[in-house]
Amino acid sequence: MRVGFKELFLNTKRRREIIDITEEVQKAITENDIENGICLIYSTHSTTAIIINEEESGLMEDILRKIDEDYPKNGIWLHNRIDDNADAHLAGAFIGPSIAIPVKDGRLCLGTWQNIFFLELDGPRIGRRVIIEVLGI
Amino acid sequence: MRVGFKELFLNTKRRREIIDITEEVQKAITENDIENGICLIYSTHSTTAIIINEEESGLMEDILRKIDEDYPKNGIWLHNRIDDNADAHLAGAFIGPSIAIPVKDGRLCLGTWQNIFFLELDGPRIGRRVIIEVLGI
Amino acid sequence: MRVGFKELFLNTKRRREIIDITEEVQKAITENDIENGICLIYSTHSTTAIIINEEESGLMEDILRKIDEDYPKNGIWLHNRIDDNADAHLAGAFIGPSIAIPVKDGRLCLGTWQNIFFLELDGPRIGRRVIIEVLGI
Repeated sequence: MRVGFKELFLNTKRRREIIDITEEVQKAITENDIENGICLIYSTHSTTAIIINEEESGLMEDILRKIDEDYPKNGIWLHNRIDDNADAHLAGAFIGPSIAIPVKDGRLCLGTWQNIFFLELDGPRIGRRVIIEVLGI
Repeated sequence: MRVGFKELFLNTKRRREIIDITEEVQKAITENDIENGICLIYSTHSTTAIIINEEESGLMEDILRKIDEDYPKNGIWLHNRIDDNADAHLAGAFIGPSIAIPVKDGRLCLGTWQNIFFLELDGPRIGRRVIIEVLGI
Repeated sequence: MRVGFKELFLNTKRRREIIDITEEVQKAITENDIENGICLIYSTHSTTAIIINEEESGLMEDILRKIDEDYPKNGIWLHNRIDDNADAHLAGAFIGPSIAIPVKDGRLCLGTWQNIFFLELDGPRIGRRVIIEVLGI
């Protein structure tokens, strides 16, 4: 069994933003020469998240708007006494920082309409770190 | 270490529907003769999801109603200009396409009240593909 | 490859409660002497969940209040005819029972502001069982 790691450092430009990282994740599998196993995508921040969905520009806007609706910036939260971003922490906690995807024959087992998205919830930020781990044979 | 795969092809009959796949997942572990490891259940669609909860008929209806409430069909979304199912994409993105479960002594480590559910969010559809991956020793 | 397991048995004191289990999870990695691999944290109950976020007391209260708002106790659900806790099942189903975290150089790859939280959604309860699985080399 082999275990390989790759790190992405993403710069975000808006408060909320979606970045498609599918290609970088597939590269990590190829670079580590894993045939069959698991790929774990893990974001090391509590105001970001990882999701999988269709790469369609309208839908990507819809996803950001839905987050704004479900986690409004103007909520009254205790955490805002320390740092004015409780909404982003709540969204990050419930959407979640990681997703695991099967790897078969050297390829991510994504469906036709599935891409891997990094979600910035409290940008803009420099150097958001995402770990791509590949484990298999 | 061994890695095994099994595919399920599910036909759904309603727009939103829950299908209990627990037994099929356990079979995949037995068929691949994995003693200790991880089982990853992964749905290859962006308008479906995988969840774990109690297999009680009333609760299963409640889960579908809660999804209808949180992701109403009549929302005004950009994606609906292309395909009238943005609500299903949003639910799929936030609920998520996969769950990993520990495998010990050849069995899924499910609790007494835990079953594995495939969630159809935009049916009816033919041949929804779910990958069950088992990795271990 | 090695696979190791550790079980936590948690006693909860309130209906909804957050318990920080980060230290116990890191111990499981050290005890099993795993250098590089995956750590899977899995709660065996359908009215609990696992999340990752910042260990700040105000934010931890905010997380519990957000759950109360999104899954109110007084909802009218079919499952409440059997057991008066549908709200907790719904929260458990959508937040999810497990998270996988990369392990590198013997350490969980958590970010600076990330801790691992067990969420009680229907306490108080005795002996909530969480499985920590470590798989790697």
